[in-house]
Order: sequence, then structure tokens, then C-alpha cells
Amino acid sequence: MNAEILAVGSEMLTPDKVDTNSLYLTQEFNTLGVEVVAKAIIGDDRERLAAAVLAAWRSSDVVVLTGGLGPTEDDVTRDAVASALGIGMHFDQSVWESIEERFRRFGRTPSPNNRRQAEILDGAAVLPNPNGTAPGQWFAADGKLLILLPGPPRELKPMVTTEILPRLVKSLPVQVIRTRWYRVALMGESDLDTLIAPVYSKYTNPATTVLASPGDVDIHLRARCGTVEEAESLLAEVGDPIASLLGNRIYSTNGDSLSKTVGGLLRDCSCTVAVAESCTGGLLGAALTEVSGSSDYFRGGFLTYTNEMKRTLLGVSAETLALKGPVSEITACEMATGARERTGADFALSVTGFADGPEAGLVYAGLASSDGAQSKRLQLFGDRQRVRALAVIHALDWLRRTLESTR
Amino acid sequence: MNAEILAVGSEMLTPDKVDTNSLYLTQEFNTLGVEVVAKAIIGDDRERLAAAVLAAWRSSDVVVLTGGLGPTEDDVTRDAVASALGIGMHFDQSVWESIEERFRRFGRTPSPNNRRQAEILDGAAVLPNPNGTAPGQWFAADGKLLILLPGPPRELKPMVTTEILPRLVKSLPVQVIRTRWYRVALMGESDLDTLIAPVYSKYTNPATTVLASPGDVDIHLRARCGTVEEAESLLAEVGDPIASLLGNRIYSTNGDSLSKTVGGLLRDCSCTVAVAESCTGGLLGAALTEVSGSSDYFRGGFLTYTNEMKRTLLGVSAETLALKGPVSEITACEMATGARERTGADFALSVTGFADGPEAGLVYAGLASSDGAQSKRLQLFGDRQRVRALAVIHALDWLRRTLESTR
Repeated sequence: MNAEILAVGSEMLTPDKVDTNSLYLTQEFNTLGVEVVAKAIIGDDRERLAAAVLAAWRSSDVVVLTGGLGPTEDDVTRDAVASALGIGMHFDQSVWESIEERFRRFGRTPSPNNRRQAEILDGAAVLPNPNGTAPGQWFAADGKLLILLPGPPRELKPMVTTEILPRLVKSLPVQVIRTRWYRVALMGESDLDTLIAPVYSKYTNPATTVLASPGDVDIHLRARCGTVEEAESLLAEVGDPIASLLGNRIYSTNGDSLSKTVGGLLRDCSCTVAVAESCTGGLLGAALTEVSGSSDYFRGGFLTYTNEMKRTLLGVSAETLALKGPVSEITACEMATGARERTGADFALSVTGFADGPEAGLVYAGLASSDGAQSKRLQLFGDRQRVRALAVIHALDWLRRTLESTR
Repeated sequence: MNAEILAVGSEMLTPDKVDTNSLYLTQEFNTLGVEVVAKAIIGDDRERLAAAVLAAWRSSDVVVLTGGLGPTEDDVTRDAVASALGIGMHFDQSVWESIEERFRRFGRTPSPNNRRQAEILDGAAVLPNPNGTAPGQWFAADGKLLILLPGPPRELKPMVTTEILPRLVKSLPVQVIRTRWYRVALMGESDLDTLIAPVYSKYTNPATTVLASPGDVDIHLRARCGTVEEAESLLAEVGDPIASLLGNRIYSTNGDSLSKTVGGLLRDCSCTVAVAESCTGGLLGAALTEVSGSSDYFRGGFLTYTNEMKRTLLGVSAETLALKGPVSEITACEMATGARERTGADFALSVTGFADGPEAGLVYAGLASSDGAQSKRLQLFGDRQRVRALAVIHALDWLRRTLESTR
């Protein structure tokens, strides 16, 4: 079974925009054995899009369109598909009611042009969109599939996992799929791949994907077999050697984020944590609290961007700041200690450093516990945003290893 | 003049490969006023590629193909183009000699299948490739252009700058491009479009794109004309009415982010700001400090996730917390006041609310200044991540409007 992906939207034809939806879709489709044979980005041009849809419909088994389902004049996907395939559309009252309901929850009322989002292709199934107004659409004819998905990744991805993949699997030969995850912090993608590629590259089943984001690498094994036993033994054959090569650099084997993993460890020992942040300006606290239920272990923190705030809010000594400066090992320790004492938390993490400027990337992380305070010197590379993000991951992973070692 | 880019190569249809050549080409073309209206990635499939080339040739002025010019069987670009346009190819002796010469310089001799790289479309100009074996090709017919470029960026980019752009400029009408941005916070995309579509939808020049992300809408106007004066007057004709319709909902006309805009306003009045965050857990501080130089105006803040922290760190009264609860108008006010007093900042923003759970989306924002403290009740919709992000935008935009009104 082969697939073609059409991303709709003139904004994705600019020099700095990349269509990441098609990368995500390709990964999910490949794991089901569906091959993506072509993809395209088309501007908001009804005729041009209709021509592309017709060509794709003729040459591929599955045609996926992403985006162009919004309420505005330049959202042309619905019309283009209808005219390309020569099928009609109808106004779906129940879809409209769910749109109205969604707006009501916002305390708003839909505008007239939102009605366009309730236009459904004749014969198409409606795919509910809990994260936005535009529903997806699933149209099957002549043994082929045409799928309309909303453009925003936060709307598209849930719809793919809950609506698309289950339906696709039904239309594919029977097989079981078993997966393994390994998530690794603070290891370069190429270093990691050099280490583990000799293990997985010999296998096409399980399929191994290595996805990297700054400071984080995600290893995903997916086995497709006739039976669960076959799948599990294949996963063990490839996964176990990878796990032993990476050791405790693996922070999660179930896909959990680093902050969720740290939160779980804190909950396990009923410990609490606090933060003291300078250059990260709140990102560390935000990461710890991005997880639902984080109030179980996160007590609070201090954003001390100036020397004065480090003194008055955290009790960092004037001498330390004068002699060693705000970006120093001892300042990081005193920040962590101050945060721990003032919040009564079991652990406190601190970050102080230069996110840009001549010394950009020099960062100290601190960790205070009942054993006292330590700090680490980090030399990070990248722009302001990346340095801040990496500093957060370093701090979190340090706490993760500390909690694991004391288990 | 519009252009379409076809990238050839199955390797670019994997989950982690991005076609960066098209981004580079788009940037270079746009500066000449050549709009990229569609782009596609096609696998190494002769028939599929030929069909795509024919469709592109029919609908666009310039068709660029990148890659597939190698010596092997699966390098199908030359053949696909010849069959799509129904033109012949000839073996070019001088191209072959330069290929032999290149191999000689590396102490090697070309293999027979390298001869395929000397196959030139009848009527096409040869574009020398000093960085590889495959030459580019430039084919003009029916007032249209078809361009073949090698896939490796280190071969493609020099060829674009030395061969393509100079040739393109010759075949273009003189043109200038001028743009305008309007960025608007906290307005639904459809409401906004209902308001301004009547103004811009009558015009194709300037081209108007409306881009939405949670809590943020980006309006981009792009005029292409013969002279700067024409372009500017077209932008005024469409942009001025849009600007007056949106009024002070516009926070930026230069593309700056909301936090950068707020930072600029604080710097203008040499004012400082502090934060007190509960449910946002640091996101508000992180947003204010994402801008380089934010230490000029950001003093610090408090992450008070528990009632106890709200009391001890910010001085929120026990009565308030007992009677009104941590998510209340008065708690938001006392948090902001406490943060302002403890940091000595001119302004303090506070956020307290429910990011999930039964009352998810109920958030209070507070703003303290020399005039005292106020708070706002917000009913936000979405998942935990979205509620937190929207709460931050509400707080920042409130401060933005306050600073603008006191100018």
C-alpha cells in the first residue's frame, strides 16, 4: 500500500517553513508498512490543489491532505477535493453543533464563516477534532482512501493516533505490532547512532527510528509479526543489546518525558523539589510543572535575574557575588541551598549562566539536598534558546540520576 | 513569475529527511520576486516523476528539478523530463570530456555509466558544475523555464548563485517587494478574518496571509510592484484599513514577538517587571526572558505552586487562601503585590489557576503597579499545555496595553 501526502498552505512555501506533519505521518505510516511515495506542498490555490489531488488520487492508494480546513477564504482544501473527485459536499448539522458547543465552552460564538468547517464530502466519515474546530474527513472509494487532516500538529497528531492509524490497520493484512522506546538525554545523535547502529542496522523488523531534538534522543523500535511472541522476541533481540549499551543514560522506556520521569521518581520517594533560576528565567520550573499532578512534588521556586534578587530572595552572599560573580560554581550552590531552605523542599535545583553574549553557553547547575549542595560547570553550544533548553535538561537529568542512585 | 520545485530522491521520503534545497531556492527566488507556488518530493520512479514534471510544466512559469542527475540506474531525472516534455537528448562530448578531466584530477577514470551524466536535453544550455560530475541544465521553451540542478547542496548552491540567478534576472520584469506585518494577540482567527477579509480579499497584490497559533494571529502583506512607491501605496491601501479595524489589538508591526514588544515598552519607560506564577510554573518568566537583553527590565519572580509558598514567599494572607482559595481574584492581586514589593519592580504580573482537572481553564491574572493591584478572571479552553500558554499571553498582553496606554 502506498501513500501520497499533500500539505496545503502558502505559508509553508516560505524559505523558513518546513512541513513537519509529513515527517510525522511518514513515520507512523512506515511502521504500518505503508510507504510514502511522494509528497507535495501546495499554496492556497483551489485550481492548483484540485489538479494535484486528482493526480495523487490516480497514482496512489492513500492520499492525505493536511491543512486548509480553517474557516477563512483561503482555506481551500474541502472545495478543491470535492471538485477534483467530482463529488458533492453537504452541511453537517451535528458537526456544526459541536463547533458551536466548542465556541460556547470558550465563551464565544462562531462567526458565519465557521460554517464552512461543517461542510463534509458526500460519503466521507467525520473524524472528531477535540483540539480544534475543523473535523478531519475519511473518504473511501475504488479501494482507495482520501484523508483530510487539520494542519496544526497539536490537532493532527491526536487525530492520527486515535482515528487514522486504527482505521488504516483494519484495511491492512492482519499483524500484531509491538514497540519499545528508549529515551536518552544529553547524548549527541551521531555519537548515539555510532554506538547502537551496529545492533539495529541489520534488522528491518523491528524497524528502528532514531529521532533527535536538542539534548534529547528518542529511539523507537517497532516489530510487526504474525504473533505477539514473535514480536516480543524480536524486540528483545534488538532492544536488550541497545539497552545495555546505553545503560543509565536511558531515562525512559515508556515514552515519558524527562520531566515526567523525574516527577515519577520524586513521587516514589515522596520527595519535593524547588528551583532557583537565573538564565533559564522559569523554563526549569515550567518543565517540572508541565506534567499534570506536579503539585504532588513541586513546591515552588525563585527567578533571580539580578545580583540583588540573588541576594535578597535566595541569600546568596554579597562576597560570593563580588568575588566569584553570579555565574560561578559557588553561586549555583548558594542559589540551590537558598531555594531549598526557603521552600522546605527535599531537593533544590539551580541554574545560572550566560545564555548569550561573549561567554554564551557557560552555565552552572546546582543541586541541594540533605547531603548539602554541589554544582556542575556546563559548556553548552547554540543560540540563546538552545542554551536555555539544554541547561534545563542537564538540571533535570542530574536530579533523575541522583534519585535513581538512591533507590 | 511563479516557480515550482521538484526534489527527486526516495531517500527524501523518510521520516527524518528534509528537502533543504527547496528552502534555499525559495529564499533566492523570492528576492527576485519569483514566487514558489508549489513544491514536491518524488521518489526515484520514472513514470511518477514524468507525470509530475508534465503537470508542473503546464501550470508554472519556472520548473526546477533538484537531484536524480547521478550516474546510476535510479537517477531518473533526465529521462523523466525528456519523456514528459517529449524532447530528445544527445550525448555532449565536451561535457563528457570535462567529466573525464575531473576524474583524472582525482587520479581515477569514469565508469561507463558516468556517460549518462553527459546526456543533455536537446536545446538545453549546459550549466558547468565545478563541485561535482553532473552538470546542470537550463531549458527554455514557450516562455517557460525548466532547470535541472544536482542534489548535493555543495554542488547546487554555487550553481544557483553563479549560473541560475544571473540568468533568471535577465528573464524577469523589474520588480520590488515590500511587506507589512500585523501581529494580534488573543483574537480568534475566524473572528479576525471576518473582520478584515472584506478589506484584503479584493486584492491579490498585495498578497495577504493570515497565520494563527494558540492566542496569536500573524497577518502578512506582501506587495510586488515595479517601483517602491507603487508597492508602498498598495500596502497602505490594504494595510491602513486593517490596522484601524484592529486598533490596539495589534501588538507588533515588525514581526516582533509579544514578549519582545513588552520588553521594548518596558525599556522605553525604563521600567522593570517581576512575576508571581502558580499554574504557569515559570512559563511567564521564561517568556519575558526569552529575549536577549531582558535583564534590562526583568528583575525576578516567584513560583508559588502551593498555598504555603504563596503565603511564605509572597505574603498572600492565610484568610484570603482560606476564604477565597488560591484561584481567586484577590489571591491574584496579593500575589502580584507581594512580588512587586519583594522585588522592587515597577510592575508585577501574577497568574493563578487550574491548568487541568474539573475546573480546568479557570485562571486569574494579576497586575500590580504604583496604582495598586487589579486582577482579571479568564476562562481558557484547551489542554494543560494550551491553558498555560494562553494564560501567559493574557498576562503579557495586559501589561502591553497598560504600558501603551501610559505612553
